[in-house]
Parts: sequence; C-alpha cells; structure tokens
Amino acid sequence: MDISKILTGAQVEPQSRQPMYLQIAGIIGEKIRGLILTSGTKLPPERELAALFRVSRTTAINAYRYLEQQELVVTRVGSGTYVAELPNGTAEEGSAVPWIQLMTPFPRLPLSTMLREILDIDFSGDTISLAAGMPDPALYPVELLQHIMGGSDNSINPIDLGHIPTEGYGPLRRLVARLLADRDIESTGENVMITAGSQQGLYLLSKALLEPGDYVVVESPTFIGAHQVFSASGARILGLPITGRSNFNMLEDYLVRYRPKLLYLIPTYHNPTGRVMSASERRELLRLAARHRLVVVEDDPYSSLYYGEKPPASLKALDTYGGVVYLSTYSKVLFPGLRTGYVVANPALINRMALEKQFIDLHSNNLSQWLLCRFLACGALDEHLALVRSEYKKRRDALAKALHRYCGTDLSFEIPGGGFFIWCRINRLFSSSRLLHQATSEGVSFVPGEAFYVHPPEGEKELRLCFATHAEKPLQEGTRRLARALDGIKRTGKQQDTVVHQPVKPII
Amino acid sequence: MDISKILTGAQVEPQSRQPMYLQIAGIIGEKIRGLILTSGTKLPPERELAALFRVSRTTAINAYRYLEQQELVVTRVGSGTYVAELPNGTAEEGSAVPWIQLMTPFPRLPLSTMLREILDIDFSGDTISLAAGMPDPALYPVELLQHIMGGSDNSINPIDLGHIPTEGYGPLRRLVARLLADRDIESTGENVMITAGSQQGLYLLSKALLEPGDYVVVESPTFIGAHQVFSASGARILGLPITGRSNFNMLEDYLVRYRPKLLYLIPTYHNPTGRVMSASERRELLRLAARHRLVVVEDDPYSSLYYGEKPPASLKALDTYGGVVYLSTYSKVLFPGLRTGYVVANPALINRMALEKQFIDLHSNNLSQWLLCRFLACGALDEHLALVRSEYKKRRDALAKALHRYCGTDLSFEIPGGGFFIWCRINRLFSSSRLLHQATSEGVSFVPGEAFYVHPPEGEKELRLCFATHAEKPLQEGTRRLARALDGIKRTGKQQDTVVHQPVKPII
Repeated sequence: MDISKILTGAQVEPQSRQPMYLQIAGIIGEKIRGLILTSGTKLPPERELAALFRVSRTTAINAYRYLEQQELVVTRVGSGTYVAELPNGTAEEGSAVPWIQLMTPFPRLPLSTMLREILDIDFSGDTISLAAGMPDPALYPVELLQHIMGGSDNSINPIDLGHIPTEGYGPLRRLVARLLADRDIESTGENVMITAGSQQGLYLLSKALLEPGDYVVVESPTFIGAHQVFSASGARILGLPITGRSNFNMLEDYLVRYRPKLLYLIPTYHNPTGRVMSASERRELLRLAARHRLVVVEDDPYSSLYYGEKPPASLKALDTYGGVVYLSTYSKVLFPGLRTGYVVANPALINRMALEKQFIDLHSNNLSQWLLCRFLACGALDEHLALVRSEYKKRRDALAKALHRYCGTDLSFEIPGGGFFIWCRINRLFSSSRLLHQATSEGVSFVPGEAFYVHPPEGEKELRLCFATHAEKPLQEGTRRLARALDGIKRTGKQQDTVVHQPVKPII
Repeated sequence: MDISKILTGAQVEPQSRQPMYLQIAGIIGEKIRGLILTSGTKLPPERELAALFRVSRTTAINAYRYLEQQELVVTRVGSGTYVAELPNGTAEEGSAVPWIQLMTPFPRLPLSTMLREILDIDFSGDTISLAAGMPDPALYPVELLQHIMGGSDNSINPIDLGHIPTEGYGPLRRLVARLLADRDIESTGENVMITAGSQQGLYLLSKALLEPGDYVVVESPTFIGAHQVFSASGARILGLPITGRSNFNMLEDYLVRYRPKLLYLIPTYHNPTGRVMSASERRELLRLAARHRLVVVEDDPYSSLYYGEKPPASLKALDTYGGVVYLSTYSKVLFPGLRTGYVVANPALINRMALEKQFIDLHSNNLSQWLLCRFLACGALDEHLALVRSEYKKRRDALAKALHRYCGTDLSFEIPGGGFFIWCRINRLFSSSRLLHQATSEGVSFVPGEAFYVHPPEGEKELRLCFATHAEKPLQEGTRRLARALDGIKRTGKQQDTVVHQPVKPII
C-alpha cells in the first residue's frame, strides 16, 4: 500500500491555530477510522512524514505520539509505527473517543505563521517586548482598587453579586452613559451594554449581523482581533487602505458593488498606525455612510490617551443617521484583566446582542462591574488618566528620540498624537520579518506589519512598536538592540536579503 | 391593495426572545423595503394589526411606533398609518439603518412563552420567588472576600491583572486540578480550563462539537440553559426520560439510530428533579458510553451541596475511556456574579475550546480568578461549604415540612439529598401553569415543569421549588401562599380546570 499517496491529498493549514501535529494526527486518524489505513499497516517513518507534510521532524513525532495516546497507532521499537487494532464497536472499555474527528471545522484565519512564531517566543529572559499592545502593569491603580474593594465605606451589597441583567450592572450602564455625554455621545442606560472587553463586543456584533458570505470592510492595516472575529463568522473581508480622503472613492465602490454589512474603523490613534482621522474626514465619511445606510463600527479604545491636543469628536458623536455602533473598553486605560468594555448602539441591536450573550456567559462579571462603578463614581479615572497620559507622553518621546538617534535613516515614522504605537517603515531592502528574526536574537521584539493587513505580504516593510508597556530606560535599551539588529543584517546580509516574493509553488 | 393578505403569510414567533413588536416591525419593514408595500399605502388600524398577528393592541402600537422611528411609516392623526416616502439611495442624511432587516436569523428556542412571562413578572413587591436557582445573597462570603481583596498580606501582583492565557489563570487551574484530585478526578492544569461560569463551558462545547443537524441527547427534564445553547447551535435534541436504568435501552437505541455527538447529564442533585444517579447506574452508563465512544458531558454544579450522605463518585472519576467532559462552577456555592466555572476535558478539546474562547473574550476576568485562587488556597471554601450545607439542609427540611403541612395531598414529592430544588407533582386535575397564575396573585412564584422538558406539554403537572434563596420563615410563608393558590383553584375552578390539550389550530 502506498501510504504516501493516501496521505498526499491531505494538507495541513499553517494558518490554522490548531497545532500542526494535531492536524496531521487528525488526517491520519480519519483514514484509520475510515478503514482506509487498516490495522497492521506500516506508516511512514517520522522523517518521511515530516517531508510529506512539510513540517519539522518534531511535529511529525508529536503527531505519532498523539495517535498513540489515542490508541490508533502502535510504535514497535526498532521497527516503526503501525496502525493499531481498531477496537470494534462492541469492545468493552478503553476505546478512546476520536476527539479530533468529532470537532467542527475550525475557520481558516488570517493570522500569519510568523505572528504565531512571535507569540511563541519565550520572553522569560530579558527580552524587551515592544510587541504586545498592553498598558504597563507598574501603572495599574492596584492600591486604589484594593482600597475600594476592602474599604469599610465601600461594603458590597450582596444582591449586586447575584445574577444581574445580561446587558450589565444597571448603575454602571447609567454611569457610562453619563460620562459619554461629556463627549457628546447621546445615550441612556438603555443603549449601553457592558461586555467582557471590546473583544466580546466585536464577537456579539458578528453573531448579530454577519452570516457566511457577507462582506465587511476594514481598514488595512487594522486590529488583528477584529479581522479574525469577522473572518471566523464566515464574512468576506474587504480592505480599505488608510490613506485619508482618497480612499472614500474606493469605499463607495465597495458599497455599491458588495453592499457590505458593516465598516469597521479605529478613527482615533489607530492600531497599528497611530493615525487620527480629521474632523472633516469624519463628517465626509458619515455623509457617505448615511447615503448608503451603512453600519459603521467605531472601535475607540485609545481616545482618552492623547498626549497633546484632544482628538476630534468621535464618529458616534457626529452620527446623524443612527448607523454608528460605538465600542470601547477600560482595558487600555486601567488594566486588561478587568475585562470590562461596552457597546453603545441602537436598542434593537443591543437587545439582539444581549440574547446572544445570554448563551455565552449569562452576564459579565459583576465584581469588576461593581468595582469599576465605584472607581468611576469617585472621579478616580480622571486622576488616573492624567497620570498615564503624562507618563505615556514621556515614553512616546523617549522612543521617538531613541529611534532617531540609534536607527537613523534605517527607519522612518511619524510621531502619533496618542495611543500606544509608533508605526515604522524600514528604508532598507529587507523585510520586517527578517528584522524580527535578527531582533529577537538581540533581545527585542515587535509585531511585523504584515500581521495587520488583509492581504499580506502587504506591510512587509513595516513594523509596530508599542511604547506603553515599558519605562523610558528599557525603551532606549530596546531601541539600541533594534539598531544592532538592523546593523547586523546590513553587515552580514550585504543587502542581498532583499524582499523577493517567492514564486508560488503549486501544492501537489 | 389587500394589506391583510400581504401580511397574513408572515408569522411572529412567540417562542422567540425577540420582542413581538420588533418581529412585527421587521415583517412590515421588509415589505416596505422590498417595495411590496409602497409609499403612501394605508396600513391596517392598530386593532386590525393586533388581530392579524394575534397580539395585544399595545404590541401593535409599539410595532408602528418603532417603524415610525425608523421613518418607514408616518402616522397622520385622525387618519391612520401610512407607508412613508422611502429615502432613495442618494438621500443625504437622516435615513435610518434598517437594523432588524440587517440581523441574522435568531434561532427558534425551546423557552416557552409561559416561562418568559414568569421572568417578566415584577418581583419588586413582596413576592417570594421560589423560581430562580440562586444561592441566598445573605450567605455570600462578602466580608471574607473584601478582607482578601483589601488585606495588606494579599497585595495583587499587577502582572496578574494583565493579559493571561485564554485557558485561565495558571495558579487557579493548578489549584482546581489539585482539589479535583481529592474527588478522584485526575487532572493537571493542562486539561482544566477556566470559563465565565458553566454556561460558557456549554457554549464553547457547542462551538467545538456541534454543527446544525447533529444530534444531542439530554435528560428530559433538564437544565434549560443547556437545552437552549445546544438548540441554538442547530443541534437536534433527543430527550431521555430520567427513570433510572430502564432508560438505558432507549439511550442505546438513540446511539445506534442517531449517533449523537454528545449526551448531557446532571447526575448529582439533578436540576430540576434533585435526583442522584446511583454508583451502579453510573458504571452501567459508562460501559454503554465506552462501547459507543460517546462523549458524555457531566454538569456538576451541586455535588458539594449534600445534606446527608456524600453523593457517589462523579462520572468523570469513573471514566475509563476518556469520554467524559466535566463542567462545574463556583456560582452555586459562592455567588453567581463571580462568573467563574471550569471544564475538565481531553487536552485537544481544551485547546479547541480555548481557540473559540479567544474570539469571545480573550480570557475570563482575572480579578475573580485571582480572588477565587486566594479564597481556595486559604481553605475558606471548606468552611463556607460547611456553613451553607447546614443552612440549606434546614431550609430543605423546612420547605418539605411546610409542603406536607399546608399542601397536604395536593402535591407529592421526594426529599432530595442535596442541591437546591424540590420537584413536586400536582395530584389534582389542573396544570402547574394554571397554578402559577394563581400563585403569583397570592405572592409566590416557581418554575412550572414543562419549561424543563424537551417536548412540552410534558411536565405540565410538575413544578420546581428552590429552597436555597430564602430563609426558613419566608419558605414557610411562601408555602402558605402556594396552599392558598391551590385552594383558590379548587374552590373557584371546581376542578373543571383540568388539563385539556387544546386542538392544534392550523395556522393560516
């Protein structure tokens, strides 16, 4: 029996987040269960299996090890791997459940293998990560939180720790609505819903609005998490280059051709580019959206993190046709583990999102909602914001100065007015993923640009650096390491390491 | 134009959780957008609209009001409601987004209208609710929690408030695994995943395992939330009467005929019946499941709430073939707002559930996970369990005694060995929903049996009473009210109010 032939048709998905060894085990397991590979059949040696699926030998070994645990194959030392005796339908016990085969197909996702590699890098050493978009733990208001939580003047009413409505803790919803009024966003408690972070807002929106085959327009580049959740719902993603007004023609073309279900935007201190959409661009966009009755999803995690002028009014504040859905979160200004974000939307949509949320978790964590409510009510947020704005401004400036000083003309960038990120372009012939490889060996990391694009390898010359997580000194040291990585490539690579698109090999 | 004819084909779904007025507005809105009802057309008066959809006049009014907000209809005082001028594609602003039409179809769910009515009942008065399956807020360990949270010996490491792995807070996962070992459930941190309550565990399982058309076996009656989440994924539900061993033949028949994806069970202090599956039944069930490599989902929120003998070992502890997925939660023993449950399962399944969870909320709330970890680590759970067991035992006995005393032979029931519920059968000719109507007017509520069944009106003579939420005195008072309700029906109804299945009217 030519095993290679049986297995050749099958492919692993490097893009999938399911580990490759499990995918391979799944493919082989299926053939065994389907009696295509029968008991006693000798399977290819690990090295051949690795070649067949174009994976490492370790992956091949792990695939066999997993199949062995599932009792689908047996390994005979010195002889090889064989298909095991299948326990028949009436075997008493010990027959393993074929978990992989039972699972629903997992959506193919736009997360490059390269990004997975970064996430897998072991940062336990003294690597300085400029990759994650996370606030600095040293700035979390932990003492104040513990004070609120433990203070005798703040005893919790036990009722508040029971079940609460799926839409969220009433006092928090009303408080959020009141705070939004200061930013010209009209809302009542009724159209505010508390979610487990903005991520859950995006998920619930997808459940409420997207069916497989629907079109969604996103900026390209954009936040990976949004792109992923829309894709996972089966929507087709249309990328809109963020080049200001000139892209409105392209948007209008999309609207006419594809009638997309929604447009997803981060208009203020955009992730990853740091860009701010101007007030006039916002108005023009909304006029276009209103004409087409387009749902605009405004994701706004960063707008209170400005380091100079305040940003223009949000799209939601300017919305005249009721089509803007507004998402925000306290993860970036307080701490991510709070998992408390919110959505402001039409009540019919809030109602539907709440119905979906009920299946998922009944309602979000009340302890956090109660705590946040006290925190907001005592005015502590403004004080905290003043602190982090002043600190992050220093860090942004420190990173920009260090980049100018150490990386000189190798990188170019604009200084963002707020948010967490400096978006850089490499002025050399090599790509940011090449740079990342060199950089991690120097002890610094970042996210290469193509991770944010709808159509990689777009973004291959760009990189995102987060200046929020570290203080000025580590930012300077991180930049020195980045400079060493740049020099290293220039010296050893002698610039032959240019960005060349590999010819696409047919998969046979 | 005969409007009634245009609208007659359409139906509202009383079973749907979308308000009826929004459904009606959606149906009419669709006809307007589709130009089936054209601008200027006079729509039926509210009374006729109400009759057409068999809804109240208020619902009809609300539907028109909603359509008016959407600018799809206009109301001319003294004249009636008319289809509005549709803003054409190039109208500048003010054209509302047709939210209802944009939404994905919401699954039809097994939640009876009657249950929705109960949930809608206003309990702000002094109604005693024996309906919700909720622990008593007066017993929540709030002071201890506030002490842990605010205590100087318990300062939080800020890192723990940043992002954590989707599978949960490492120290909590390992601690849960260690505590499970005391109950003979083998696990490492690797196969334990923290979820936002058991509800999220059920949701993630559905995402990982169920596709539309798949079969799922549940006990009938069973926990409504499980039934709903499986149905929402498009699975077909097979009900297994809980009558002990005798139903294993039916289960085997299901396994052979339908090859269901999973069997969902609450073997210990079952919701709603309070039943415990015996040790020998558990073994027999597992032998059958192993033969068919059936995935068994064991939901176990109540097993630490025993009021006499400890219950038998869990299915997971007895699992010899690796097919049991174990779910539990701290919502019932601590407080629901903690939203912290967990799943113990095969690592491949945990991996897949974590991939799904990443889209939904990145990870569960760390503040609760940190707090729970401290709470468990200092041994406070055992102390708290001893307290609530002793208290709930008194309450169970108080309710049972009151039922015997006040309701006499009208209701029969068995005293459960643990959990939250007494499951009663009405020994009269009227149904539990008839009783509920009378009972709410007397100031007491419960959940009528049919809410828990796969095929209502099964359960129409049964009712679930929760003895956990109230202290002994309100339980006694609640029972007196229930007795008054029973007497009221017997007196006024003279027993003609028998359970009669209405002939099924064809919907035209």
